[in-house]
Amino acid sequence: MDGRSRALRAVRLSSEGATHMTAPKRGRPRRGPDPERFHEIVDAAAQIFHRKGYSATSIQDIAEAVGVLKGSLYHYVKSKEDFLYAIIDGATQVALQEIQAVARMEAGPVDKLTAFVGTHVRFATSHLTAYSIRLREMRELGQERREKIQADGAAYNKVMRDVLVQGQEQGVFDAGMDVDLMTTIALGQMNALTRWYREDGPYTPEQLADVFARTVVSAVISDRGLQGEGVEGLRRSIRAAPRADVAAQA
Amino acid sequence: MDGRSRALRAVRLSSEGATHMTAPKRGRPRRGPDPERFHEIVDAAAQIFHRKGYSATSIQDIAEAVGVLKGSLYHYVKSKEDFLYAIIDGATQVALQEIQAVARMEAGPVDKLTAFVGTHVRFATSHLTAYSIRLREMRELGQERREKIQADGAAYNKVMRDVLVQGQEQGVFDAGMDVDLMTTIALGQMNALTRWYREDGPYTPEQLADVFARTVVSAVISDRGLQGEGVEGLRRSIRAAPRADVAAQA
Repeated sequence: MDGRSRALRAVRLSSEGATHMTAPKRGRPRRGPDPERFHEIVDAAAQIFHRKGYSATSIQDIAEAVGVLKGSLYHYVKSKEDFLYAIIDGATQVALQEIQAVARMEAGPVDKLTAFVGTHVRFATSHLTAYSIRLREMRELGQERREKIQADGAAYNKVMRDVLVQGQEQGVFDAGMDVDLMTTIALGQMNALTRWYREDGPYTPEQLADVFARTVVSAVISDRGLQGEGVEGLRRSIRAAPRADVAAQA
Repeated sequence: MDGRSRALRAVRLSSEGATHMTAPKRGRPRRGPDPERFHEIVDAAAQIFHRKGYSATSIQDIAEAVGVLKGSLYHYVKSKEDFLYAIIDGATQVALQEIQAVARMEAGPVDKLTAFVGTHVRFATSHLTAYSIRLREMRELGQERREKIQADGAAYNKVMRDVLVQGQEQGVFDAGMDVDLMTTIALGQMNALTRWYREDGPYTPEQLADVFARTVVSAVISDRGLQGEGVEGLRRSIRAAPRADVAAQA
């Protein structure tokens, strides 16, 4: 599934951005705006927000991109911010759903951390536009919506933190590690790829998933967690790709 | 030195943003715009760009923040972009100067990498506003200026890449590591702190320098580089702070 169609799927999973569609105006019995068309428009808005930035984009820009009059867009949304929310909430719900499969995995901390990193890297690379907007334009959302997205983000991050705590409890991750700070650092490290990753670039998402997983696991492993195989042996043993397939089936 | 005064120093080191100051108009023999005042205005512009974003900020916003008429600002700059360039180039020159002291260090790869990370983290935290603008608003610069900043950025990144290569050659860093990708990942990891670091937050720059240095070194160390002390022993031995003082004296 390519990035564009996955982005569309992300938006489809988002119901809140589309509340106007199910509430046609009184006295207008004809059918409301087309949901498929709404998703196309949201996708077009995402491309423009990503290229120009949210605040530099006007509703007029979006209308021109999809070839309709500006007034037509108000059948779908009340404001430019509604498009932003549909994009960000859509991506957030997909990410949360995928990471909860990792949380449910019956596996050791190294495997779960590897699966977390692999799942996150695959999500970020396959939803590059929507996720970049999520990272860069959150402050443009109104307070209530921003807090809702932040709560979902906290639930997402907690999956990683729980894995780090589990690893410390089992003695395989460094007992001296600050799990909150490491969660922040590891996610920041992966999210930074949205600044340079390109679909036609030199690295595939699977290669990046492996390298990021090795980097994150190397940073947290304890001497006991190395099980006498050394750091190079540990890194060679880490393959984020197959393990994440396990996560997807969970 | 606090972040604000360092940011001012950064701007002082930038000459290109101030070209208008040394070229008063013909037939106007009175003294040109005051350089100190220019730096105050650039600092005010940086605060606003950081808070609102560059494209949402007008010259009028900057004029109001410093309490002058909009027209007065044109004694100092030709356009809003001139402010952006003064901010970004100023920060870039300071960063480059500091990291070149690391490049000149006579030390082993682990110590040099630790010093690189410590220097970078201290720079990013002490120039938080200007450096965040550098990371987020580069695309707003015209092509020539953007390419100049990118060339400086490439010279900066090469210092880290050279240290990684040196470590591989000496067998203390993992021979299987892709040094270009690791440079990108490690810098992205550190730069992500501009998204959450606050001067009044729970971590000091020195604490962060240590944690980032341990994270980066753990990710690249080879079995031979561990010298039998284990990963936990390696992490305990890493103190970015004192080593970076060495770098500053170099």
